[in-house]
Amino acid sequence: MARLEFWHEFASTYSYLAAMRIEDLARESGVEVVWRPFLLGPIFVKQGWTSSPFNLYPAKGRHMWRDMARRAAQRGQPLEQPEPFPQNSLMAARLMLAGLEADWGPRFARLVYLAEFGQGLDISSDAVLASLVAEAGGDPQAAMLRARSDDIKARLRDATAEAEAKGLFGAPSFVVGDELFWGDDRLEEAVAWARGAHPLQRAGGRAEPAPMRA
Amino acid sequence: MARLEFWHEFASTYSYLAAMRIEDLARESGVEVVWRPFLLGPIFVKQGWTSSPFNLYPAKGRHMWRDMARRAAQRGQPLEQPEPFPQNSLMAARLMLAGLEADWGPRFARLVYLAEFGQGLDISSDAVLASLVAEAGGDPQAAMLRARSDDIKARLRDATAEAEAKGLFGAPSFVVGDELFWGDDRLEEAVAWARGAHPLQRAGGRAEPAPMRA
Repeated sequence: MARLEFWHEFASTYSYLAAMRIEDLARESGVEVVWRPFLLGPIFVKQGWTSSPFNLYPAKGRHMWRDMARRAAQRGQPLEQPEPFPQNSLMAARLMLAGLEADWGPRFARLVYLAEFGQGLDISSDAVLASLVAEAGGDPQAAMLRARSDDIKARLRDATAEAEAKGLFGAPSFVVGDELFWGDDRLEEAVAWARGAHPLQRAGGRAEPAPMRA
Repeated sequence: MARLEFWHEFASTYSYLAAMRIEDLARESGVEVVWRPFLLGPIFVKQGWTSSPFNLYPAKGRHMWRDMARRAAQRGQPLEQPEPFPQNSLMAARLMLAGLEADWGPRFARLVYLAEFGQGLDISSDAVLASLVAEAGGDPQAAMLRARSDDIKARLRDATAEAEAKGLFGAPSFVVGDELFWGDDRLEEAVAWARGAHPLQRAGGRAEPAPMRA
């Protein structure tokens, strides 16, 4: 079965949009989704950014929130701005790794995104996260213990290093083999690539343009 | 007739993608396109960037060129990387203002983008630009003279200041009234907005989400 890696950051607004639709979209195309939580913060710091670019560049941030409102309306999804933004996503990402060892990972991820960007809840709160683990079908106490283990901590650090090594610079990103796609807007194209059905693949990796008229 | 402002920068790769399809797309929807050339450089400088973010952030730049190759293949468009990137787009933008006073502006713009990103030609060259003016139906000598007038120089400076005042931070951007859309990916949504047919408009400016299932 064709596989697509879904690299998502729990603090990322556009990861919310992708997380809510990726499983349905991939299933329709016969593509398996591999959920890859990671932290964007360490990658941003290396680019010289101390916060989200949406905070560092106010015009970009204003557009992003308006764009999210428009996209949410198009997709019939709720949207609330959490305070602060970006949220501290460390514990959510560690819990996601615990959930992926069990069977409640993807459902937990969607619940986290809905709590954070659909209701504006604080996803750095243990109480919020514990109730989402339970709602997803996990055991909150065992999951919290597992999420705080050295093993899970190391695996999240490794995932973030792997993300950087693969050339990721933002979230969400989709990876199929060596092919990197950035942004919820590229989800359909990434799924097509996983199926081997992208026009650039069919052209043997080289664009074969039709004659253009200006 | 509904109007949509198309703010484009001649050095911008994604402005190329939008420029090649905007007239057909808008016409099908009964929307008039108002071409608004401007310079992104002065806006980038105020954000602390001395070059294109695609050069300042190499991972972002690598993805952009690959993304452009995939998009170009999807749309049957040629793609070549001009050297240097970004190109100096000052004279092309001034000529575009001259072309918009006459009737060859939009056709000239498409020819510039095709020369630059379809063939990799240097669009800061007077010889290249003069031949594109002629191909678009203008008088190269008269156009060059007009493009170098104080009037056109001031109008391009004013357009760039207006872009910044409207909250633009990248190109292409689409503006309908106070509504700002950034990126070729948002062209369909901007056209829908110009027609008053966007879900957020129909919901009275407020998202009315359906109940979500995680």
